[in-house]
Amino acid sequence: MLTERTPRVAAARKLLRRAARLEAGRFLVEGVRPVHEALTWADEDPRRVHDLFLTDAVADRDPTLEDRATALGIRVARVTEKAAAGLSDTVSPQGVVAVCSTVTVGLDAALAPTARLVTVLVGVADPGNAGTVIRTSDAAGADAVVLAGDSRNQAVDPHNGKCVRSTMGSLFHLPLAVARDVDAVVEALRQRGLTLLAAAGDGETVLDASADALLAGPTAWLFGSEAHGLDERTAELADHRVRVPVHGRAESLNLATAAAVCLYASARAHH
Amino acid sequence: MLTERTPRVAAARKLLRRAARLEAGRFLVEGVRPVHEALTWADEDPRRVHDLFLTDAVADRDPTLEDRATALGIRVARVTEKAAAGLSDTVSPQGVVAVCSTVTVGLDAALAPTARLVTVLVGVADPGNAGTVIRTSDAAGADAVVLAGDSRNQAVDPHNGKCVRSTMGSLFHLPLAVARDVDAVVEALRQRGLTLLAAAGDGETVLDASADALLAGPTAWLFGSEAHGLDERTAELADHRVRVPVHGRAESLNLATAAAVCLYASARAHH
Repeated sequence: MLTERTPRVAAARKLLRRAARLEAGRFLVEGVRPVHEALTWADEDPRRVHDLFLTDAVADRDPTLEDRATALGIRVARVTEKAAAGLSDTVSPQGVVAVCSTVTVGLDAALAPTARLVTVLVGVADPGNAGTVIRTSDAAGADAVVLAGDSRNQAVDPHNGKCVRSTMGSLFHLPLAVARDVDAVVEALRQRGLTLLAAAGDGETVLDASADALLAGPTAWLFGSEAHGLDERTAELADHRVRVPVHGRAESLNLATAAAVCLYASARAHH
Repeated sequence: MLTERTPRVAAARKLLRRAARLEAGRFLVEGVRPVHEALTWADEDPRRVHDLFLTDAVADRDPTLEDRATALGIRVARVTEKAAAGLSDTVSPQGVVAVCSTVTVGLDAALAPTARLVTVLVGVADPGNAGTVIRTSDAAGADAVVLAGDSRNQAVDPHNGKCVRSTMGSLFHLPLAVARDVDAVVEALRQRGLTLLAAAGDGETVLDASADALLAGPTAWLFGSEAHGLDERTAELADHRVRVPVHGRAESLNLATAAAVCLYASARAHH
């Protein structure tokens, strides 16, 4: 039974911090269902999951966790409740944590030449929002998600615990890239023949039936931060600035709901 | 300058609790923009806002707050920073709080005979989710939102601080009703000739172009809780069980994004 002072547990605990994740190229996945998602991801390559830590209570409740990890040759260890809590950034620790390799790939690897629907988040800082948009992108059939941001508008780390939880496993389902240079992202999307659509409350193109033809082709959606939306310069780089119509008296939609409406409008046009 | 011990401030502070809001029929609205929304709401009937508490800093930054409230005959008082913080349930108090009459109306008053799009939340417990769906309903042009729930699945109080913030003012824009009896809600919707659509991940009707004809008529959407979705019995009460298609490997969408996709599918069919 490992405790919070066991070096392996102490090393894993450091991954709660972004800098440590970046340095180690590893992150933590917590909870029965998310860990099962991670193990499914490791079915393709067992080296993707390095450690499974779980309490006796969780192991008793779901013996398949240990069985699956062991079958993949993943190191499994029982830990104390306190050790499990130390590996958690939530108020209700789940008692099971996997140490995984980070999921992000380079921009070129994320953007297949055949990509038809790509989500780009520009300077989105809230991990819950980013995770929700990754989940929605997966559901809408997107081919990739790019988290773009510079030093001024730093992109969220998709391996942040809250972001991982919000994706509900989707961060293992489609290619994710983190990119600092928005211009390079735009250039890469253009090279693949994607039409760039900037989601903008004051966009000249309305997202209604009249946009169907536009959405039918290969498309990349650019979404800005929850606080300020897309900066003007990035919006101007896009081929079209598209607004979700507001029929009532609301001023706008929030980021995650606007993205859901945009991505599902694309999904409808594609299917 | 009122302090946290001034009886009016102490009385307002109690409104942070649901039971006190229910008893007083009043609730708190915090922040410059939300308070402006409340004052616009009070333009129709100044008795809707009872007190405006603000710090010197906020009054200096936005003199129109006091001006508007005074013009409406609303009682205005400067308060200390500490008093303002005591009226806030956030980690960063905004320095301005209005005491408003609760916005909810009875079910019959909320559902106009001409209603063409109604949102019903059944047993939704998370105030942030409820607020986001109210905001999205407003944007999609919904005519009303009903928060339904019984003692087992208690409906969220839309006057909860987090819910108010998430609505971004939309709780002042369209009729809101809180109802305990889901059957009575269903009956009232039917009487008004609305087709009832239950959002359900395993629904038999797919929300794609084939559903356009169904959505073109007067419609009420029923959404279940974030944890369990709609209970089976309520889903069976609806005319159709509708699923948002999942094209990728995500298991589902979250409540707020699913509602956004459904409500905007209706908005598209209506406009």
